[in-house]
Amino acid sequence: MTDIQAQEAGIAAKRQEFYDRIGGQNLTPLWLSLAELVTPEPRSNCRPASWRFADIRAAMMEAGGLITAKEAERRVLVLENPGLRGQSKITTDLYAGVQLVLPGEVAPAHRHTQTALRFVLEGKGAYTAVDGERTLMNEGDFIITPPMTWHDHGNESDAPIFWLDGLDIPLVQFLDASFAEHLGQDEQPVTRPLGDSDARFGANLLPVDHRPRGGTSPVFNYPYERTREALERMRQAAEWDPCHGLKMRYSNPVTGGHAMNTIGTFVQLLPKGFSTAAYRATDATVFAPIEGRGRSIIGDDFVVEWGKRDIFVVPSWKSVRHEAAEDSVLFSFSDRPVQEALHLWREDRGNA
Amino acid sequence: MTDIQAQEAGIAAKRQEFYDRIGGQNLTPLWLSLAELVTPEPRSNCRPASWRFADIRAAMMEAGGLITAKEAERRVLVLENPGLRGQSKITTDLYAGVQLVLPGEVAPAHRHTQTALRFVLEGKGAYTAVDGERTLMNEGDFIITPPMTWHDHGNESDAPIFWLDGLDIPLVQFLDASFAEHLGQDEQPVTRPLGDSDARFGANLLPVDHRPRGGTSPVFNYPYERTREALERMRQAAEWDPCHGLKMRYSNPVTGGHAMNTIGTFVQLLPKGFSTAAYRATDATVFAPIEGRGRSIIGDDFVVEWGKRDIFVVPSWKSVRHEAAEDSVLFSFSDRPVQEALHLWREDRGNA
Amino acid sequence: MTDIQAQEAGIAAKRQEFYDRIGGQNLTPLWLSLAELVTPEPRSNCRPASWRFADIRAAMMEAGGLITAKEAERRVLVLENPGLRGQSKITTDLYAGVQLVLPGEVAPAHRHTQTALRFVLEGKGAYTAVDGERTLMNEGDFIITPPMTWHDHGNESDAPIFWLDGLDIPLVQFLDASFAEHLGQDEQPVTRPLGDSDARFGANLLPVDHRPRGGTSPVFNYPYERTREALERMRQAAEWDPCHGLKMRYSNPVTGGHAMNTIGTFVQLLPKGFSTAAYRATDATVFAPIEGRGRSIIGDDFVVEWGKRDIFVVPSWKSVRHEAAEDSVLFSFSDRPVQEALHLWREDRGNA
Amino acid sequence: MTDIQAQEAGIAAKRQEFYDRIGGQNLTPLWLSLAELVTPEPRSNCRPASWRFADIRAAMMEAGGLITAKEAERRVLVLENPGLRGQSKITTDLYAGVQLVLPGEVAPAHRHTQTALRFVLEGKGAYTAVDGERTLMNEGDFIITPPMTWHDHGNESDAPIFWLDGLDIPLVQFLDASFAEHLGQDEQPVTRPLGDSDARFGANLLPVDHRPRGGTSPVFNYPYERTREALERMRQAAEWDPCHGLKMRYSNPVTGGHAMNTIGTFVQLLPKGFSTAAYRATDATVFAPIEGRGRSIIGDDFVVEWGKRDIFVVPSWKSVRHEAAEDSVLFSFSDRPVQEALHLWREDRGNA
Repeated sequence: MTDIQAQEAGIAAKRQEFYDRIGGQNLTPLWLSLAELVTPEPRSNCRPASWRFADIRAAMMEAGGLITAKEAERRVLVLENPGLRGQSKITTDLYAGVQLVLPGEVAPAHRHTQTALRFVLEGKGAYTAVDGERTLMNEGDFIITPPMTWHDHGNESDAPIFWLDGLDIPLVQFLDASFAEHLGQDEQPVTRPLGDSDARFGANLLPVDHRPRGGTSPVFNYPYERTREALERMRQAAEWDPCHGLKMRYSNPVTGGHAMNTIGTFVQLLPKGFSTAAYRATDATVFAPIEGRGRSIIGDDFVVEWGKRDIFVVPSWKSVRHEAAEDSVLFSFSDRPVQEALHLWREDRGNA
Repeated sequence: MTDIQAQEAGIAAKRQEFYDRIGGQNLTPLWLSLAELVTPEPRSNCRPASWRFADIRAAMMEAGGLITAKEAERRVLVLENPGLRGQSKITTDLYAGVQLVLPGEVAPAHRHTQTALRFVLEGKGAYTAVDGERTLMNEGDFIITPPMTWHDHGNESDAPIFWLDGLDIPLVQFLDASFAEHLGQDEQPVTRPLGDSDARFGANLLPVDHRPRGGTSPVFNYPYERTREALERMRQAAEWDPCHGLKMRYSNPVTGGHAMNTIGTFVQLLPKGFSTAAYRATDATVFAPIEGRGRSIIGDDFVVEWGKRDIFVVPSWKSVRHEAAEDSVLFSFSDRPVQEALHLWREDRGNA
Repeated sequence: MTDIQAQEAGIAAKRQEFYDRIGGQNLTPLWLSLAELVTPEPRSNCRPASWRFADIRAAMMEAGGLITAKEAERRVLVLENPGLRGQSKITTDLYAGVQLVLPGEVAPAHRHTQTALRFVLEGKGAYTAVDGERTLMNEGDFIITPPMTWHDHGNESDAPIFWLDGLDIPLVQFLDASFAEHLGQDEQPVTRPLGDSDARFGANLLPVDHRPRGGTSPVFNYPYERTREALERMRQAAEWDPCHGLKMRYSNPVTGGHAMNTIGTFVQLLPKGFSTAAYRATDATVFAPIEGRGRSIIGDDFVVEWGKRDIFVVPSWKSVRHEAAEDSVLFSFSDRPVQEALHLWREDRGNA
Repeated sequence: MTDIQAQEAGIAAKRQEFYDRIGGQNLTPLWLSLAELVTPEPRSNCRPASWRFADIRAAMMEAGGLITAKEAERRVLVLENPGLRGQSKITTDLYAGVQLVLPGEVAPAHRHTQTALRFVLEGKGAYTAVDGERTLMNEGDFIITPPMTWHDHGNESDAPIFWLDGLDIPLVQFLDASFAEHLGQDEQPVTRPLGDSDARFGANLLPVDHRPRGGTSPVFNYPYERTREALERMRQAAEWDPCHGLKMRYSNPVTGGHAMNTIGTFVQLLPKGFSTAAYRATDATVFAPIEGRGRSIIGDDFVVEWGKRDIFVVPSWKSVRHEAAEDSVLFSFSDRPVQEALHLWREDRGNA
């Protein structure tokens, strides 16, 4: 050991003794951790991942034989990000799962501060009820459960229904702001006719004295039929974004903002043969194709071959490119509204 | 003349001499006019008034023989408020007229800062074009021409088309903010497919990177078919407002605000036999029933018996009561967005 | 008369007969007035004008001998635009006057929907009271009376006080939205300490649970001392706008918007020798220099030589250039917030 | 084992086998974790905690001998919540530390997406520079470093300076949105005079054409002298909130919102002898008294005896009561703006 080495070792030892000592006072030196706390670019444990619907469906049907919707409260298989196992997260701040309700079953009424989206993957004619109003759930529909609204789901059709749940569970947990209650009965009373919210808020009209409340869209079902038809009409203009094809966000007609406060929801049309330019943004995004077939390349080398109802996730600041083998429609969701509200959202369109 | 009278006369004379003298300096005493400038309640020259569509139609058809749409630029008969004759106003700050385009005619392209609404009274299949996109005009449709957008109207159908024009002409004139241009050709080039704006903005979806601009709704046709169907669906909930029946405002889906910056537009359903409670507000309002039959009592004693396509006006702060003899739908417009933006709007719902 | 002339005369006669006939139905042809209703550029009756404070002061002092503040309710001489005589307007939609309160006088408490600004021209130590709180009025202070707040003015100093009043009287009249009341006693009770609003809202702090209401700034006195010091500090950065020198708008700290809903207020520093580039905007503006000396050229040839406390007005869309013979500070006000709220405001910075 | 027990064991075993199997597909049953993910009330690992300034100061001075500001980049001791050790967090989503800059030292220029607040605990005359403008740091001043602005700190005084740092490091990390850069030189060039931002934005005036950007207040120093004087003036009105005494939030004068996007900052005056009623809210809050002496009871039984410069933390939804033994001023910060923006914030004022 040279003198210099000895000196350095002495300093290191003194510092370590200091760190140990102040640790007891709940103090710790920033300079040891600064570089990993404030990183030059996002450095996430979230990893690219994908799930085949066929696999999920098989597992769900098996789960259907192992537990009832009522016993489970919600019969859901959580899609856990492989980089975040054990945390019930698909990205760092969002949760995703696939829910199954069998014919004749009810998922009992409860409410919570967490916002939920439902994107129907398979089935039709089941219902979800929100604050006294039922809406029918059909394939491709995007349905909202606003914070602290009573909600229950039921299936009066004769086939199972499967949907993708997206919730801000990790975010609300992180902010220590969770409140929840059970109603104490399976189904809440129905007090409004079917389609009432859509008529009242979804037709580019608003009740004359309506005042916005809570930020979440009062339109709680965005039926796929209407969305798909709008995409088809827009297609005529042939205005394609190199990164997105034709991409729309679901909006709250009362404010023009995102349909939900904490989760952004999107739908995009990629015509057959379209390849998007590389794109990245800080909002990790969950994709669920509902029509078509294609593949996506995430980061340098993670390739997802996807078809209808499959699910995949693109982490923050990882580039993604999509290639559509057929006319394809992709639903997606992310925390973009949160990042926009906090002025943190950033995108990189490459040279597009 | 007593001494006191003499003294008073002396004071009055001195004051008058003073007033006359300072008048030359563009000075004038407030105390002589204060009471009429700042009134305890609105004291308007605007008067209740009504027009029968049959009369307007006859006059318009006669006008159709006296001048072409092209020569007139816009073949319109202005509905002048009887209390505001010679000013081209239906209320103190709004203009209304009825426009006729005969089969094969074109009203040539121009643009201006004034915002225009079109409410189609009779006819179908004519078009209006706004910034390169045409929309078809059918009875009951509410159509917007946003400020400074090129617009022309044409009638390729085989019947005359009549619509109600509402503009903020007096307001823009009052604010000294009028700009206008002629395109120099009858029809602007069509650059977007029919229905493009509606698909892009009217289906509770928005282009993912859209930023609101200018405040006016990018949805420029609110088709009556959709509006009427929404009213019918809402009707099931049987929630009737005592003053309004079932009243909606047309909204800008990009902001949730009024569809236009300066003119509020409304549609209300009054079921057969419904009588509204007395209501007054500071926004003088132009009504145009598009379905049904009934009567309205304005102030104490001005009674309008109205049917489909008739037009009547309720001045600021005059109470109005409606009685529907049949299921009726009333379109209406006023300056409510202006008054709301300036925090001046006030309503009085009586004991309702 | 040729055949053609005869034909034309026939058409003209027919048309005139038609116009006369439909006039009885409150109908009038648009095509005769369209060109003057919708003009290519603002075409206002408002004219450039100026008043010397010395003249106003002399007239006011004379008025002081002819009528008491109490008898007059407000002893004000209205500054009438020479193009709008008899209408109590300084621009098409704004009112201006100069008010005098003599030592010991009180202008009794009333309230109205009209918003008022006071810009103190001469004097110190008088007060204005707004909703239970008094504020002292000193030369150069900009003071607000929000809509429908009780207010009275008093002068407990030993010298007369003169201030410039700016109100939205013509605008509120035009919108038929005037409401007003007398309190029935000269002075309202004082319920809050001097300076309370300023402490509560004016120090870049807000009460933790404050919700904005009504749009008008709760800071109702912007003392000149503070404004002047801020201008002097900013001057160090030597960032001069070619059209404005150093121009600030008074702001509502609760919203960041204009201090008042209907009247924009501004203050600008023009250093000695500074000449501004030609500038025009659609908001006709009233200027009141409070320091310095200079001249302004309005339009092509209207020249105002101004000094401290003089007043002049620049109509909509007329260009103005200022030349400062000394370090000068100009207070100004206009309807810019109205035009901005309605998306009508437009400026032209020439080549600046 | 009874038959029923045997059956149950069989079911349990089957389920477990299922869970194990689907685990390999990154699927996991929600029903096992639902109750801990969506809790009836916030259930946080964050714990009440406190630090004495005397202890922190002693440790900081020792650190001053062990590492230079330059070597450390920032010589800061992190205040780690005892329930969140090893995570550099004082609450679940916020970071706090105490920074020391010795006379003659410089903390070199860098920038990052994380927002920082500085609350000066001891010292005067050091500076922080933000985007070319320096501001002096004096005891009690609240200073902002907006996201992605270059900043460096220096101490040209002859005494050490200590301040409390509050940053949204855990939040930005959680959202995977961290970007950071080093300038490559210790001090950025100074391009604006001292006090320029304060003059431009902090005097209830705004540059006439200013457009808000990024949400963070452009006033980046809120000097204690001004804040303290405002509190003292407000005190005259004697309006005490039972839960807060007299509590203000620092505001962004350009928007009226919080001074920063992600961290709310507050200052409150508790007069001698004042005891607050129990209060709880979902925003865990860090308190730093800067005047006075007293104690606070957090939850049922955690008691903090605090004096000037001490620091303590109240977790989400834990009640707090303060008792002031002397006139006391408490600075505090929390994530309230985040929770408000996401419509998650909730408070409970008990019976106050």
